[in-house]
Amino acid sequence: MPEGWDPPEHLNAPPQHAPEHLRPPPAPPSGAAMRVKLKNVFIVYFVVSLVGLLCALLQLGQPCDCSQQLQAERHRGRDRLLAEQRNGGARGETRARGGGQALPTIYVVTPTYARPVQKAELVRLSQTLLHVRALHWVVVEDAAAPTALVAGLLASSGVPFTHLHVETPPESRRRPGDPPWLHPRGAEQRNRALRWLRDTRAPGDGGVVYFADDDNTYSLRLFEEMRSTRGVSVWPVGLVGGLRFERPLVAGGRVVGFHTGWKPERPFPLDMAGFAVALPLLLARPEARFDPRAERGYLESSLLGALVSPAQLEPKAGNCTQVLVWHTRTEKPKLRQEEQLQREGRGSDPHIEV
Amino acid sequence: MPEGWDPPEHLNAPPQHAPEHLRPPPAPPSGAAMRVKLKNVFIVYFVVSLVGLLCALLQLGQPCDCSQQLQAERHRGRDRLLAEQRNGGARGETRARGGGQALPTIYVVTPTYARPVQKAELVRLSQTLLHVRALHWVVVEDAAAPTALVAGLLASSGVPFTHLHVETPPESRRRPGDPPWLHPRGAEQRNRALRWLRDTRAPGDGGVVYFADDDNTYSLRLFEEMRSTRGVSVWPVGLVGGLRFERPLVAGGRVVGFHTGWKPERPFPLDMAGFAVALPLLLARPEARFDPRAERGYLESSLLGALVSPAQLEPKAGNCTQVLVWHTRTEKPKLRQEEQLQREGRGSDPHIEV
Repeated sequence: MPEGWDPPEHLNAPPQHAPEHLRPPPAPPSGAAMRVKLKNVFIVYFVVSLVGLLCALLQLGQPCDCSQQLQAERHRGRDRLLAEQRNGGARGETRARGGGQALPTIYVVTPTYARPVQKAELVRLSQTLLHVRALHWVVVEDAAAPTALVAGLLASSGVPFTHLHVETPPESRRRPGDPPWLHPRGAEQRNRALRWLRDTRAPGDGGVVYFADDDNTYSLRLFEEMRSTRGVSVWPVGLVGGLRFERPLVAGGRVVGFHTGWKPERPFPLDMAGFAVALPLLLARPEARFDPRAERGYLESSLLGALVSPAQLEPKAGNCTQVLVWHTRTEKPKLRQEEQLQREGRGSDPHIEV
Repeated sequence: MPEGWDPPEHLNAPPQHAPEHLRPPPAPPSGAAMRVKLKNVFIVYFVVSLVGLLCALLQLGQPCDCSQQLQAERHRGRDRLLAEQRNGGARGETRARGGGQALPTIYVVTPTYARPVQKAELVRLSQTLLHVRALHWVVVEDAAAPTALVAGLLASSGVPFTHLHVETPPESRRRPGDPPWLHPRGAEQRNRALRWLRDTRAPGDGGVVYFADDDNTYSLRLFEEMRSTRGVSVWPVGLVGGLRFERPLVAGGRVVGFHTGWKPERPFPLDMAGFAVALPLLLARPEARFDPRAERGYLESSLLGALVSPAQLEPKAGNCTQVLVWHTRTEKPKLRQEEQLQREGRGSDPHIEV
């Protein structure tokens, strides 16, 4: 046995001559001893459990440690944002964050037609719209059938959308050599969107309708300005009508005139990008629409005249003192080299979408 | 007293002739009665508290109810996303969500100059860049001093940015009547950005540098394609050089030629929008820069020739089969009415920024 090694305790215990259950029971304690023992146990137990109860009570109503769940939630945040943007706002109204208040959906109506820059324009506009909450994009192609280019672009844009189409009738179509202003472009397509709204929205639905061409530039603030439209709201438009900007003139919170350099006699000398209409007003006036045969510059007036009087216009953008939308035009690209290479049989691969 | 009305209990109690504390104490219970009573109380208390203890044990390790905190977190999600976009990516690398892996910062270098569409162009581009994680926008004005217009726009854009400026020297400046291609625009400004990168980034910093003019159109996918650039990466550009698109031709994963209709003899027949450079490569070759006196079409080659050989180019965008960027040009707006009204003293309010 190594030095310093003590045998385990049971080896030191005195031998037991009989198993415990065969030994005689110990004498029962006297009444007083039993009383004291029970009392002590009860008091100790009472004190210990009372302390425990107090601790439990202190925990009541305290926030629990949610840091792990919050961490997971943060990681999911971006994905949820994207999902919201994809799915939200398709019908009627969307819940605003925080307050549980309804945010009126903005219906952005964009007429579009096939041309070399079409995809680029729609990609750029989709990136703007993707930033805006509670927005539904109604894209109307000037085409006999929806095209794969526009359908694919919309599906991958992340913006809630409706894809419509209507072909401009031959008598209204622009012929080669016609000046660009002879036939107002997009009237039939915008009317198709109005029909879709009237066919699918219910009388009680809130919302705002904005006619946004695919080549203009829109600040994000513009959409929050127009969201509170109750009838027809208006604001300045930059780089339009040969001016730095056109704008309604406001006094005492009301529109009292228009700064414009072109046909100031028009009832509503406004560009298409310079106004929005409340959906309930459009639903209440089912006959209001764009007149495809309106004189040049009178297309906007043909719709607005059926909805409000100029004095009823609601000024936005700091009483029409801020330019939040620009009437940018994209150059038609020259494709001379393409034609040359195609004649040589070396044109750009037609299977690659541009 | 109304019928059926019983007096309250204390009115029925027998009169007490003395307050309780003056009454003689009751006789103490016998030992046996006390024992039984204590025992019963103890047993009941024990059983009740044991049940409570079991319930408490069952709660241990269970997730607590974090629904309220999660709800609040969801509401804060969008604000946090914006804040991240504002603050993230300013230096070096940014942590990717979830994985803890570093995401190389994309430095987008944009030369810009004062013109009527400048604000619109920068607003539109800022909305594109605001969607991209880990991005830093280096905007270089062609101006003797930073302008309030660009400074204000950058500050409100939500995109992390650096605002630089350098004026094009008089001998390189375009004079009225000069064809647009006589002097390559933006060379001095891009070189200023290269100097900023070399002055402020450390040799070990990761990142990718992309030269993005303010009028092109960029898909969001383009930025994720370029993020993995190790040397110089390349891809097709739409609507450039008179073609539907120009693109590098790829075989076996390597660039073996270029589809272009203009000066195919150039060492790198690529548009400025068609390549990105890894930051470490730019830092390792401090002499590489754009040559402001390069012949027309050779500006890109003047930088790239100092960095790689054509065979080293890394093809992106599905081996250069997808158009993810478009060389769109914005029309110069005609401001005839503005000039007319200004002659009449009725020009657009010069205090309103456009």
